Amino acid sequence: MGVLENGAANNQNSSPTTTKPTKTSLSPDSMINLDQGDPTLFEPYWRKMGDKCTVVIEGCDLMSYFSDMSSICWFLQPQLGDAIKRLHRVVGNAVTEDRHIVVGTGSTQLLMAALYALSSPADRHPVSLIAAAPFYSGYKEQAEFLRSGLYKWEGDARAFEKDGPYIEVVTSPNNPDGAIREAVVSRGEGKLVYDLAYYWPQYTPITQPLDRDIMLFTFSKCTGHAGSRIGWALVKDKEVARKMTEYMQISSIGVSKESQIRAAKILGVLSEGCQHFRTVDSENFFEYSHSILKERWERLRNVVKNSKTFTLPKYPLDYCNFTGKYMDSNPAFAWLHSKEDIDWESRLREHKIIARSGERFGASPKYARISMFSPPEAFNLFLERFSAIIDNINGNVVA
Amino acid sequence: MGVLENGAANNQNSSPTTTKPTKTSLSPDSMINLDQGDPTLFEPYWRKMGDKCTVVIEGCDLMSYFSDMSSICWFLQPQLGDAIKRLHRVVGNAVTEDRHIVVGTGSTQLLMAALYALSSPADRHPVSLIAAAPFYSGYKEQAEFLRSGLYKWEGDARAFEKDGPYIEVVTSPNNPDGAIREAVVSRGEGKLVYDLAYYWPQYTPITQPLDRDIMLFTFSKCTGHAGSRIGWALVKDKEVARKMTEYMQISSIGVSKESQIRAAKILGVLSEGCQHFRTVDSENFFEYSHSILKERWERLRNVVKNSKTFTLPKYPLDYCNFTGKYMDSNPAFAWLHSKEDIDWESRLREHKIIARSGERFGASPKYARISMFSPPEAFNLFLERFSAIIDNINGNVVA
Repeated sequence: MGVLENGAANNQNSSPTTTKPTKTSLSPDSMINLDQGDPTLFEPYWRKMGDKCTVVIEGCDLMSYFSDMSSICWFLQPQLGDAIKRLHRVVGNAVTEDRHIVVGTGSTQLLMAALYALSSPADRHPVSLIAAAPFYSGYKEQAEFLRSGLYKWEGDARAFEKDGPYIEVVTSPNNPDGAIREAVVSRGEGKLVYDLAYYWPQYTPITQPLDRDIMLFTFSKCTGHAGSRIGWALVKDKEVARKMTEYMQISSIGVSKESQIRAAKILGVLSEGCQHFRTVDSENFFEYSHSILKERWERLRNVVKNSKTFTLPKYPLDYCNFTGKYMDSNPAFAWLHSKEDIDWESRLREHKIIARSGERFGASPKYARISMFSPPEAFNLFLERFSAIIDNINGNVVA
Repeated sequence: MGVLENGAANNQNSSPTTTKPTKTSLSPDSMINLDQGDPTLFEPYWRKMGDKCTVVIEGCDLMSYFSDMSSICWFLQPQLGDAIKRLHRVVGNAVTEDRHIVVGTGSTQLLMAALYALSSPADRHPVSLIAAAPFYSGYKEQAEFLRSGLYKWEGDARAFEKDGPYIEVVTSPNNPDGAIREAVVSRGEGKLVYDLAYYWPQYTPITQPLDRDIMLFTFSKCTGHAGSRIGWALVKDKEVARKMTEYMQISSIGVSKESQIRAAKILGVLSEGCQHFRTVDSENFFEYSHSILKERWERLRNVVKNSKTFTLPKYPLDYCNFTGKYMDSNPAFAWLHSKEDIDWESRLREHKIIARSGERFGASPKYARISMFSPPEAFNLFLERFSAIIDNINGNVVA
């Protein structure tokens, strides 16, 4: 289910109050969990920032349900709204002018809110929800788990032929395969939700400020702060923003204020670091996180290139407006394809590697999604085991 | 809708980072919003606590999705679980031994989780959701807004005659009317969810540690920290706890860690204060909040006793195990009844008082629910205006 699997070698047991880096002590018997994308590998950067990102909250702070009654999203802390707009201006990945910001408990809750906002209780039939395969496995779960009469999961957008209203989720860069995407279906009655969780410079070149009706982002994948559960939507239409806010109100009466002010602080430090990175001697966060992912991808590609069976997607170089350079893509997940007609999730598990099967993403079990976010020790051990699997296959020994 | 209404004179616009007490500047034209229960009136107590409740969170803290992989609720911070158990032991309002704790984004999200956990996707018909009228207006909204096929709002438990499985929500003390309640329907196929948001010593005598299958509590009403959006469920059955956790996972991948560690800290200080309150010279939080509510109730009853039209519920004195004394009830809401067949929500609004109509609670519009949580200035102005209404009616001038 979702982010959770058993035997998770890269999960952290948080220590009281503050989570210090976990010393994973992996043994040859340890399962390596590369199923979910828990982005703790960015932790050392934030540790280096020292007090700059520290928030201090007194017992009497932030007690009210309300943050800003002049905003459609009345539970959005104004300083978070400001920090979000500033960061998008600095990075250049999304237009924020004349947009309503709706904050959510992660972008997960915001996708649910968007489904609610874009469906019509008056309609006799539920609106169809689609996404081009391979699609993020969570969408199907979210659309189906409450058996809502408002919307219905219809699977792969490329196979969608029904008449009537639909919502297409466009994930770009895509989870699981890192591809840059546009909508597949284009009909008058369609509405689009852009899930832009990974449209940040460490993952992909920023080629333009996107300007879509509904764009979802998440603090988790931007900075690595998954535990805060902060996401935001940039929404063009006022009534859609109002209905998304209503969803949040009915389902959880708003979003943690503590997480909001902490996200505001950290996004502020992030923006600051980016604006001065050409003049100051310190590395900005996106450079740091890009260099980690790039190094991991190079090591993984070095292992895979020895294989007669496995391939990884190739990504074009593109000009990144943020860095002012031609850049490669280094997605958060590796979308591993095998020529062999084997259920790779099961096979990898025999080798103590937990990956997520292509089937979960509407693709073949010949694909497996591998998280590139694991702690260093887990990633090293994964490469070791995966090399051994490849050597076995190359030597015609069944792995 | 829910907690939100327009022209809210008692809503706070939070200042950056820390919310300092709002100086409401009410004029004779100001609307007074007594619609929702925003518990900011307890703020001065927490201000007085100074640094004791302060949390400091560094940039590198709490980054993972995961908190404790050994717990069914894997996103529950262990120190919050410990603080919850300790507080219930100190107060004596609920049994925690051999219970699973599930944390939620407020008890609002946990009620949704309980509906998910107690319904069966395999059933052809949705499980009926009922509560004895007058019932909290949010339950109907929560059950209906997504048109789920898993559960169906069937209204007043006293009028419920359908066969088949049902879930009865037992709210005790009840919102809106402060009554102590037990289940109304009692059949083999029924499941009970106890919403115990107000079962704390400032509101009602603690007569016994409750020992029910599913008990919901919320930080908002316990200490007044509504902005944190922290609720918890004490759950007897492991499979129910697992499914509630699954709901949280699919709908929001867990709950804010910042809010969790802050709630742990504040609940810890609260427990500490209660354990020493007979030996130390400082007031404990429940004494403080009880004295505020008691004074407000006395002033309101003094106004209402002049009326030939209005009445308020009477509550029996009962022995409170927590204080070791016979205590009165001072609920968070006043459930105002009028003999006159008038829509009191509309009539009060003409007098610039926003209350919530009895109709929203499955009762007559001759009832109105009034929040006792408003800032002092708003409460004073309410009493002034309400006295004038009563004087008008008594003088046979139509108010």
